[in-house]
Amino acid sequence: MNELQRTLEWHDGTVLMIDQRVLPLHYEIKSYTTYQGVADAIHTMVIRGAPAIGAAAGFGMALAGLQSTAKTRSDLLRDLEAAAAVLRQSRPTAVNLFWAIDRMLRTATDESHDSANDVRNALIREAQQIADEDVEINKRMAEHGAALIKDGDTILTHCNTGALAVVDYGTALGVIRRAHEQGKRIQVFADETRPRLQGARLTAWELMRWGIDVTLIADNASGHYMRKGKIDICFVGSDRTAANGDVANKIGTYKVGVLARENGIPFYPVVPTSTIDLSLPNGDLIPIEERDEREVTEIDGVRFAPIGVKVGNPAFDVTPHKYVTGIVTENGIAYPPFEVSLKKVVKKQ
Amino acid sequence: MNELQRTLEWHDGTVLMIDQRVLPLHYEIKSYTTYQGVADAIHTMVIRGAPAIGAAAGFGMALAGLQSTAKTRSDLLRDLEAAAAVLRQSRPTAVNLFWAIDRMLRTATDESHDSANDVRNALIREAQQIADEDVEINKRMAEHGAALIKDGDTILTHCNTGALAVVDYGTALGVIRRAHEQGKRIQVFADETRPRLQGARLTAWELMRWGIDVTLIADNASGHYMRKGKIDICFVGSDRTAANGDVANKIGTYKVGVLARENGIPFYPVVPTSTIDLSLPNGDLIPIEERDEREVTEIDGVRFAPIGVKVGNPAFDVTPHKYVTGIVTENGIAYPPFEVSLKKVVKKQ
Repeated sequence: MNELQRTLEWHDGTVLMIDQRVLPLHYEIKSYTTYQGVADAIHTMVIRGAPAIGAAAGFGMALAGLQSTAKTRSDLLRDLEAAAAVLRQSRPTAVNLFWAIDRMLRTATDESHDSANDVRNALIREAQQIADEDVEINKRMAEHGAALIKDGDTILTHCNTGALAVVDYGTALGVIRRAHEQGKRIQVFADETRPRLQGARLTAWELMRWGIDVTLIADNASGHYMRKGKIDICFVGSDRTAANGDVANKIGTYKVGVLARENGIPFYPVVPTSTIDLSLPNGDLIPIEERDEREVTEIDGVRFAPIGVKVGNPAFDVTPHKYVTGIVTENGIAYPPFEVSLKKVVKKQ
Repeated sequence: MNELQRTLEWHDGTVLMIDQRVLPLHYEIKSYTTYQGVADAIHTMVIRGAPAIGAAAGFGMALAGLQSTAKTRSDLLRDLEAAAAVLRQSRPTAVNLFWAIDRMLRTATDESHDSANDVRNALIREAQQIADEDVEINKRMAEHGAALIKDGDTILTHCNTGALAVVDYGTALGVIRRAHEQGKRIQVFADETRPRLQGARLTAWELMRWGIDVTLIADNASGHYMRKGKIDICFVGSDRTAANGDVANKIGTYKVGVLARENGIPFYPVVPTSTIDLSLPNGDLIPIEERDEREVTEIDGVRFAPIGVKVGNPAFDVTPHKYVTGIVTENGIAYPPFEVSLKKVVKKQ
């Protein structure tokens, strides 16, 4: 099978996804024709990254429409509600998942549809729209962010924020990709990003495919390279951004922010405005998901920690805004004071 | 076979060592009757940790004396010089290795020995003396450092500085152990310490054996716990300390120091005065060993990074003295200004 153009694609009633669990050593494409299959793909992390999960849930709802044998709109809506309940369980901490499902349900209840089949077709169009909008937003973020990168810069990034985390292109990694496309000679240091190693598994793989000079490092080494003057600028993602500019992102992002400020290096989260929560006064109100201890005690089933050891495995941390140089969005870059600037970029939506 | 009392022991012409490569899932004891075997054990990291390597080299030289068939003192010295050359190659960046070998050669050339056999016996006594002195120094450091720990404290540590890194007891982990022996109720957060995972493999295992409450975390998570107020004090090791108080230690120690200061948490390296180099004005003069890229790209032979990816793998970093609260030595705790205080603790030797 040929490679996919995007992280996930809709092909005539089938959802195709790159299986991110077997990268970078294998490239496999999974196909799903049921919403249950899509829910399982999200749950087992065939697909990950907030925007990609949202798009997958959208396509899952479109599949649920096709699966339903309902003749009437109200019977179809009942089946869609059942599918939504299953999809919501697939990754209960993913905000984009709930957002996409709600958007698909709103589409289904739109009074302008005449028949159940009209709804089915509208769901397919809406899911595709969610995916297309994501790509568009990524490209706009990339354009704004790439302007911050100078020819010859060495960039540090954390976790995976590439095309694989979204529908296509990437958020923080999209910024780097755009600078490369602009002909700037850049180097990237990629944190391996324990415990799940998304930097080693996905970021390094994507950068190599794009022809960008990448050096993979243990998370412990980033401070050393910063102190030695090897890093010019940092770009990271953010799962959720508070009104004051605090960002919640993959565990270890806080460390990157602190080390960057300590060494006078600019630190930019790259975030779609959909993930900026102006109702949240600060980041400490964001609940931190605690994940399976086996992520810390073993890798690919190979255990290296003592049997029975207690483990702490927070999935995210909060980087307070004082470490944040600016926040790159699809509507421009917000600078401190973020209480003012974030409102402006969000309003442009 | 019963467990060893120490990391390595001399038993009547045989050197026994705990094989640290198979911990924590297996406990195996290796035995060596030749200096070549000991050199190989150091090279392949059956044994690691600067003081443990020094003691192993001492016993290796004692074995070389027994292996030699020389009848005269001068013939024996020639054989010992040959053994020293082999042992020096086993871990060329380990300062204690060279120190112990030189001390053994000085013992061999002591004019008071009458015969080759006198020299052989003196070598065995001297190697045992090196090992015993190390244990003594560790216990004195532990006593000074434990006074800094309060009942109820939660302590963060990095890498392995336990009994396994030395002959017995431990440096930074010895401090923690002593506080536990004093009846203080303590908890420890152990950084897993990528890339070699000495925290996950060795520190967690040692703390569990000693009955100390330990939580294993990814290196990325330490900042989160510090910011959340979960950590009261940090103890780390140091391979080499400069006259101004800069410490060179396992990669990632710098990050711990910066995050600790940022969060108002005291940060103490625990170092034997033998590793304080007053001739070195600052830490940036310490060369940083670059290690095998496979430490970053795979774990126990399981590869997870893309084939052909470029890797940066510095083994150590330098934590500038401004992040150092105090330096615990066997002669007491040195506080800033370190140019003055380190001279005092070194003089007491």
